Amino acid sequence: MSQVSFIDGKTRVYAIVGDPIEQVRSPEMVTWELQRRGVDAVLFPLHLGSDDFEGAMPSLMKIRNLDGLIFTIPFKARAMAFAQRLGEQARRVGGFNAMARRPDGTWIGEMFDGLGCVEAFKRRGYPIGGRRLMLIGLGGAGAAICVAMASEKPSHMGIFDLDPARCERMKAAIAEISPDTAVEVVMPRVEGVDILLNATPVGMLNDTRMPIDVGRIPPEVIVFDAIVKPERTSLLKLAEACGCRTVGGREMMLGQIARIVNFFIEQKVSSDTA
Amino acid sequence: MSQVSFIDGKTRVYAIVGDPIEQVRSPEMVTWELQRRGVDAVLFPLHLGSDDFEGAMPSLMKIRNLDGLIFTIPFKARAMAFAQRLGEQARRVGGFNAMARRPDGTWIGEMFDGLGCVEAFKRRGYPIGGRRLMLIGLGGAGAAICVAMASEKPSHMGIFDLDPARCERMKAAIAEISPDTAVEVVMPRVEGVDILLNATPVGMLNDTRMPIDVGRIPPEVIVFDAIVKPERTSLLKLAEACGCRTVGGREMMLGQIARIVNFFIEQKVSSDTA
Repeated sequence: MSQVSFIDGKTRVYAIVGDPIEQVRSPEMVTWELQRRGVDAVLFPLHLGSDDFEGAMPSLMKIRNLDGLIFTIPFKARAMAFAQRLGEQARRVGGFNAMARRPDGTWIGEMFDGLGCVEAFKRRGYPIGGRRLMLIGLGGAGAAICVAMASEKPSHMGIFDLDPARCERMKAAIAEISPDTAVEVVMPRVEGVDILLNATPVGMLNDTRMPIDVGRIPPEVIVFDAIVKPERTSLLKLAEACGCRTVGGREMMLGQIARIVNFFIEQKVSSDTA
Repeated sequence: MSQVSFIDGKTRVYAIVGDPIEQVRSPEMVTWELQRRGVDAVLFPLHLGSDDFEGAMPSLMKIRNLDGLIFTIPFKARAMAFAQRLGEQARRVGGFNAMARRPDGTWIGEMFDGLGCVEAFKRRGYPIGGRRLMLIGLGGAGAAICVAMASEKPSHMGIFDLDPARCERMKAAIAEISPDTAVEVVMPRVEGVDILLNATPVGMLNDTRMPIDVGRIPPEVIVFDAIVKPERTSLLKLAEACGCRTVGGREMMLGQIARIVNFFIEQKVSSDTA
């Protein structure tokens, strides 16, 4: 039989849009998750030059069997202009990384960076509600993690970023999402903390630095690092050496894949807003 | 491992553009052929509404990891406006069904309907050169078959279409392609014929009619029918009953898939013209 089993004329399509595109993991991971759930769909890589994005988006959105898009560098922020509606995370973070077409034809954008982190904690059985968090870094991924974590209603959130404006903005966001959570803009610390979260790029690739200046971490602290490469950053190595439980960037990525697929294939997600 | 083996960020993409799209076979067949040859590429179905085609094409052609497009109903003729160059078949037929991006960035269009028919004969080991052909129907597929068959230099071609203008146009085309081939516009016949070719829609789906008014066919005639559904048309049934060798539409389709994949993955095809 001159055919393959994973694609035919009825297969629904999704795409990840980026520049460059070769390094993205969504095609294999989202496609795997879609097919694992019995959905006849494929996510393919779509390489648009940076200058071509705004011109091409309206045409891409007209492809009738294309039901959703994921955005990566450098298009995450620029995709905002094309969604008719925003999910709750996207609205609070001020950006999104996935967009889906709803049955009424409108496109809704949602941010999954933070939800993937929450999902990773849930899969491990590590509760967030009622816990004391310290979050370092409030950039794109950091803001998303901040919003998603606040939605889980921790008792306390210490937040830190080199940019004071980001700190004030996230402080206000947390107060709105979870009024009972005590928020503090503080220097990174490990004392009085249940969960330590790194959302800065410090420790990425060949960078062996730590995002926090400590020699040891109390063993009861759960340490999360959003960095995917390397899998074991200096922070996670220290945490392991101290007997801490750790959650890595790859787990966040897997959690995000699961949440994005929910978003793609559900007719309506709870976070949809008018 | 949360991944699939057939698609990742480095996978090159092709697409078939049509409206509707669910019935197309290229996604499974071309993808199978690409992967069989060790090419990391997938052809996906791309459903554009008829009104969206001209607006979307320039954007699709800017997708940097998209190396080729196949066109089906209703876009075959309309795609002509977007190719910078035409292959020899496309130029002579006045239309094409596939377009590929060449290394210099230009897009070249080529017509494979006829080449698929020639390929089917070659795979069976049935020579065309020096043979006497009778071709019924000179519409889209018929014109393509006429041009591709003429390129094989048969000794004689009888051609028939209800539209005299098509007959005159194809008569001139054959004379140009193969000056030594004797061409005649004649009523469909089976006497003095080595290969009988049906390229009309007569016999398609529930139509049990014959494209030629005969009660028997000499057993030495090879009978071809371009119709894919049903696989065994009334014409092919009669031919089999008469002891003739037959070639079906599905073989033409398979031959076409092989030729299109050559066209997609070769840096330069011999039929490229400036």
